[in-house]
Amino acid sequence: MKAEIIIIGDEILYGLTLDTNSAFIAEKLGELGIEISYKTAIGDEVKKIVEAIHSAQRRVDLVIVTGGLGPTSDDLTVKAIAKAFKKNLIFHPEILKKIEARFKTRGIEMPKINQNQALIPQGAKALENQLGSAPGILIEEDKKIFIALPGVPKEMKAMLEQEVIPLLKTKVGKTKIVHRKLRTTGIIESKLYEKIQDLLKDLKEIKVAFLPSYLGVDLRLTANLKTSSKSKDVITQLEDKIKERIGGFIYSYDEQTLEEVVGRILKENKRTLSVAESCTGGLVAAKITNISGSSDYFERGVVSYSNQAKMEILGVPKELLDKFGAVSQEVALAMAQGVRKISKTDLGLSVTGIAGPTGGTPEKPVGLIYIALADVNKGWVEKFIFGQDRMINRERTAQAALNIVRLYFLGKYK
Amino acid sequence: MKAEIIIIGDEILYGLTLDTNSAFIAEKLGELGIEISYKTAIGDEVKKIVEAIHSAQRRVDLVIVTGGLGPTSDDLTVKAIAKAFKKNLIFHPEILKKIEARFKTRGIEMPKINQNQALIPQGAKALENQLGSAPGILIEEDKKIFIALPGVPKEMKAMLEQEVIPLLKTKVGKTKIVHRKLRTTGIIESKLYEKIQDLLKDLKEIKVAFLPSYLGVDLRLTANLKTSSKSKDVITQLEDKIKERIGGFIYSYDEQTLEEVVGRILKENKRTLSVAESCTGGLVAAKITNISGSSDYFERGVVSYSNQAKMEILGVPKELLDKFGAVSQEVALAMAQGVRKISKTDLGLSVTGIAGPTGGTPEKPVGLIYIALADVNKGWVEKFIFGQDRMINRERTAQAALNIVRLYFLGKYK
Repeated sequence: MKAEIIIIGDEILYGLTLDTNSAFIAEKLGELGIEISYKTAIGDEVKKIVEAIHSAQRRVDLVIVTGGLGPTSDDLTVKAIAKAFKKNLIFHPEILKKIEARFKTRGIEMPKINQNQALIPQGAKALENQLGSAPGILIEEDKKIFIALPGVPKEMKAMLEQEVIPLLKTKVGKTKIVHRKLRTTGIIESKLYEKIQDLLKDLKEIKVAFLPSYLGVDLRLTANLKTSSKSKDVITQLEDKIKERIGGFIYSYDEQTLEEVVGRILKENKRTLSVAESCTGGLVAAKITNISGSSDYFERGVVSYSNQAKMEILGVPKELLDKFGAVSQEVALAMAQGVRKISKTDLGLSVTGIAGPTGGTPEKPVGLIYIALADVNKGWVEKFIFGQDRMINRERTAQAALNIVRLYFLGKYK
Repeated sequence: MKAEIIIIGDEILYGLTLDTNSAFIAEKLGELGIEISYKTAIGDEVKKIVEAIHSAQRRVDLVIVTGGLGPTSDDLTVKAIAKAFKKNLIFHPEILKKIEARFKTRGIEMPKINQNQALIPQGAKALENQLGSAPGILIEEDKKIFIALPGVPKEMKAMLEQEVIPLLKTKVGKTKIVHRKLRTTGIIESKLYEKIQDLLKDLKEIKVAFLPSYLGVDLRLTANLKTSSKSKDVITQLEDKIKERIGGFIYSYDEQTLEEVVGRILKENKRTLSVAESCTGGLVAAKITNISGSSDYFERGVVSYSNQAKMEILGVPKELLDKFGAVSQEVALAMAQGVRKISKTDLGLSVTGIAGPTGGTPEKPVGLIYIALADVNKGWVEKFIFGQDRMINRERTAQAALNIVRLYFLGKYK
């Protein structure tokens, strides 16, 4: 099955909003073995949308459009779909009821204009939107599938996963393509490549992609053999060899995040964690608490941005701050031990550093970070020198801090 | 002038890499008043690339392709360009010299494979790459412009700004298009639309787009009149009318975030802030401290995830927690007052709620959030009911909390 993704919206076309939807859709379709032939972005203009739908219908079996399903006058996708398929728009009272109910639970009266969203082209099926008012649209005609999804990423993703993927699975049959992502952190791309390059030579049945980001480098293995079990076999074989070389750097597989992994480890080991942050300003705690159920192992966090807060809440001695400065291994350690002590958790994790872009000195440059971990007996500090960008430094630091907790349970710190 | 952007590369098409290039190019072209008609993404396949170039050449005046200019065997763009324009590839020794020099300064011997990158279609101009080995390609034929840029974002951006934009400026003359974004929060899209819909009727010279996200709704005004000053005038006129209706909901313009706005307000008013968070788990503090210079007004944050932390650090009375529960207006208020008191800041901001997906009860459903603000004299609490999604609830809550600080300085709370 071949597919085309059409992104609708002036804001995407003009570069005012970054399109993340099409990458998500492409990846999910790819997992089903559906080949993406084209991605097209066009503006909010009925004529262009109709043209794009027509040319996509000619060249592929599955067309997915996103965007332009909102209630306002610049949302023209439903109108264009009706035109492209030569259908009338039909009012669906049962859809309106759902939209009204959504507003009611939020304690808001539904504005009249949202009634528009209960209009669906004749013969089309409405796809339920769990997170917003705009329903999706499904049209099956002449053995071709046409799907319209909302442009708001969260709504689109939920609808794709809950409604579209199950439907497509029934159409494409069993997938032969197998993907496997090995997620690493704490090692740079070229170093990783050096460690495994001989394993990648003369690979015919399997594709390996290096996907670097500031959270680490993901390795993506893809196999497309005659059956999915054969694909799985070759992937597993290569994966085992790669693990022998770089096992400790791999923190998870596929879409699992480091904060999920750390949460699972803490839960399994029945240990609790508290966090004291300076330069990350709450980001480490925010990542940890992004995971539902984190209250089982996360007790508290302290964003000790000022020295006063470091002394008052965490009990960092004034002499340490005066002698070594807030960005030092001594203070990092005192913060980790301090937060562990006041919260009575098994582990205390701390971060202090210079996120930038200002505040650096020759001895303590922008990007200098100390991360400390303390348990009931001992404490450890790691030093990092990241780059010049504040946002990237903060993200990298949070990832490195979480990784230290993971490595602790792997026995790195004793 | 109308333009099409073609993104080449399997990794983009399959959603393995997010395309940020096309948004950047579109924005830069938009600033010159060049209208983007289409964006297309295709894979690494000569036939598809040739087809895409041909159909773009038919429908627009300017075609920009990115990607596939690297030295390895999956980089096919130069070959495809030569085919599309029916040109031979010509070896340019002066380009090879530059590539060799690049490797020399990095202390690396140039791999033989990079010699490929000195091949350019006959009659084309090579565009210099300051940051990498692949030169860009420029072809002017039949009053149409064709440009190929590297796919590595940094290289593409530098080449676009240093080589392409100056060239295009000579072609298009002065820009006439003016964009203006009004960013609102605290009001839903359809409500916003109702309030201003009569202003949007029969607008001919100006386009208005509604861009909703869980942070709020952005309104984007675009005008393209005979001169940029005329475009500016009509935008300002409409903007003034819109402001009369919904002024209080507008928190910023263009790309400025709410955390930047709140930071600026605190700085200007010489006030300090501390934060106590439960369900957002550090996200409010993380957003505030994302802003460089936030240590001028942000003193500390407490992620009081456990009741113990609420009592010990913030001094929330046990009786309040027992009587009203952690998610209550009483506890929210005590948290805000508590964090303000211990940190000696002018303002204390707090958040408590049920982010979900679990933990809800009939009386206190998932999505129930209390946000409190305290100054030295008084405290205020706002109640919100958001949705079912944990991540969205957290983001919305953080935005609503920051907005309450903004509204305080607008005189809403007295």
